[in-house]
Amino acid sequence: MSKKGTTYDDIARYTGFSKTTISRYFSKPDSVTPKNREIIAHALDVLDYQSNKLAQVLAKGHTEFIGLLIPNLYLNFFGEVLRRFLGSYEQYGYKFIVFDGNNKAEAERKYINELISYNVEGLIVLSHTLSSFELAGCGVPVVAIEREDKYISSVNTDNYSGAVMATELLAGSGCDVMLHINRSGINHDIPAAGRIDGFTDVCEERGILHEVLTYDAETDYTHLESQILGIVNTIEEKYPGKVKGIFTSSDAIANIVINELFRRKKDIPGEYRIIGFDGSPISAQAIIPFSTIAQQIDKLVGSAMELLVDQIETARDGAPPKEPEHLTIEPQLIDRATT
Amino acid sequence: MSKKGTTYDDIARYTGFSKTTISRYFSKPDSVTPKNREIIAHALDVLDYQSNKLAQVLAKGHTEFIGLLIPNLYLNFFGEVLRRFLGSYEQYGYKFIVFDGNNKAEAERKYINELISYNVEGLIVLSHTLSSFELAGCGVPVVAIEREDKYISSVNTDNYSGAVMATELLAGSGCDVMLHINRSGINHDIPAAGRIDGFTDVCEERGILHEVLTYDAETDYTHLESQILGIVNTIEEKYPGKVKGIFTSSDAIANIVINELFRRKKDIPGEYRIIGFDGSPISAQAIIPFSTIAQQIDKLVGSAMELLVDQIETARDGAPPKEPEHLTIEPQLIDRATT
Repeated sequence: MSKKGTTYDDIARYTGFSKTTISRYFSKPDSVTPKNREIIAHALDVLDYQSNKLAQVLAKGHTEFIGLLIPNLYLNFFGEVLRRFLGSYEQYGYKFIVFDGNNKAEAERKYINELISYNVEGLIVLSHTLSSFELAGCGVPVVAIEREDKYISSVNTDNYSGAVMATELLAGSGCDVMLHINRSGINHDIPAAGRIDGFTDVCEERGILHEVLTYDAETDYTHLESQILGIVNTIEEKYPGKVKGIFTSSDAIANIVINELFRRKKDIPGEYRIIGFDGSPISAQAIIPFSTIAQQIDKLVGSAMELLVDQIETARDGAPPKEPEHLTIEPQLIDRATT
Repeated sequence: MSKKGTTYDDIARYTGFSKTTISRYFSKPDSVTPKNREIIAHALDVLDYQSNKLAQVLAKGHTEFIGLLIPNLYLNFFGEVLRRFLGSYEQYGYKFIVFDGNNKAEAERKYINELISYNVEGLIVLSHTLSSFELAGCGVPVVAIEREDKYISSVNTDNYSGAVMATELLAGSGCDVMLHINRSGINHDIPAAGRIDGFTDVCEERGILHEVLTYDAETDYTHLESQILGIVNTIEEKYPGKVKGIFTSSDAIANIVINELFRRKKDIPGEYRIIGFDGSPISAQAIIPFSTIAQQIDKLVGSAMELLVDQIETARDGAPPKEPEHLTIEPQLIDRATT
């Protein structure tokens, strides 16, 4: 009955019973209460499982650990992405070591080095801190989501196509002026830049009056909110009496705009038509549930896991790494009361 | 110049350069461009760091891994808690293996067993799935936050004191009827039960008409929202014309209530006075930023880390585990426009 590699000491420590109780369990089971017998039997299962698992890892070096690097978790989108990755455990069995480097390159570099020294088998990177060139050289498979990805595999939303959908919807409803709100200084090598291009292309093609309004990189929600309220003022002053179509680069921003317009008793969707981007919970939880371009987070995460697991298995087989692969997921238009 | 344990092969693989380039770097440095010399020097630092770190772990068995078990991440509170834990890396150097077991006991048990087989040094548990008795027997130090904690160390908000603050504020402003919204079937061994007790005690002491309204455990936001809207209807029908003080067990619920009352053009804080619990971002981002009892998440997380690190160090020294310790953090009243 005693399992290999598990000692009376191990079982006593795990169950909190004395070594003599454990000894009696094996020699005179009837002298131990049924409840305690059950606890000891459970402990044996667990300890046996653990020693097998550890032996397997030590033998093969397959830790089944994946490092997950995320930026500012206070944005709904990343929380949702993280939840889906954690949920993939039941399908793939990989465990996630999660890190929020708060945009500090040195901290992120040190962290990755630590992860690799612990034989993490792959990395999923959503943070923008390190270049894909540096990440490609880190020695384990890497898959990026929605970030610069020249030298590494990636899965991205088709941001351009999402922006076209949003802009066509607003333009088709007869807006006098089209406005896009986004962060300033978006680099063209990140996928989200497609949101600006899609907006601008549709407006120019249709010859509609349009403007891109930008805010600085936000440090936190309060900072973001005060900048967006400034943009709402600008829009009010600059385009009085016109029907305004507003496409924001995130649902967090659309929510701030809608709250403020609602407080000012503005007519939505009469004078203001608004659509966000992400499909995050706030789009359904807002004072007016609003239209949005929903990223299919389940597909983004599912495809990223497939890509990474495939690369990890290639690495386990000792085969040379494959060329970086770039997958694209179509977003979906959710048409609600604000458009 | 070449560092111990690092081969030309390692450096070539890490940098993506050929072995001859690496060889030239050491024999004829001037034949390598300054940029590539810098990349190779960086790789040497990294690889040296990694081999040292791994040697240290193998020698001492100190993985500096902590397992973090959270429930449904879609609630703001847990996202915020996670962010703070991840942020403690710079102070403590511990890495977090995060798991969302989705309330499935078998999955959570299997996961903990895996973590322990990988020599995780401690666990932080926020999920309610497994009993503290079972967790206490898992063989590594455990600290709980806001959950049943009889057999393990814990850090909790003083929920009772928070509920007293909220109820005193509402009662003191002259409400005709006091209402508390909470989940049904809250067990008295979980800390959050103090929110109901604090509310009831203050109302009874002051002899104010009061009622606790409950909803079933929520599966997701939509399910929660539809239940809360039902409760809002009940309140409207049952207490017309009265000044109503509503204390909700979370900010997520207060937000749903306020959105609905705002849509119905109800007078806040004339007819309805509302205060939430948690101090999560939604309390500041809502259509009317609302009053709340803020949990001091930085202190909850800071104290939990101190407790756990202390226990980990005790375990490293081979000393017997200490008795479970239970710390309490005072919440703070944030008084905004809804009260």
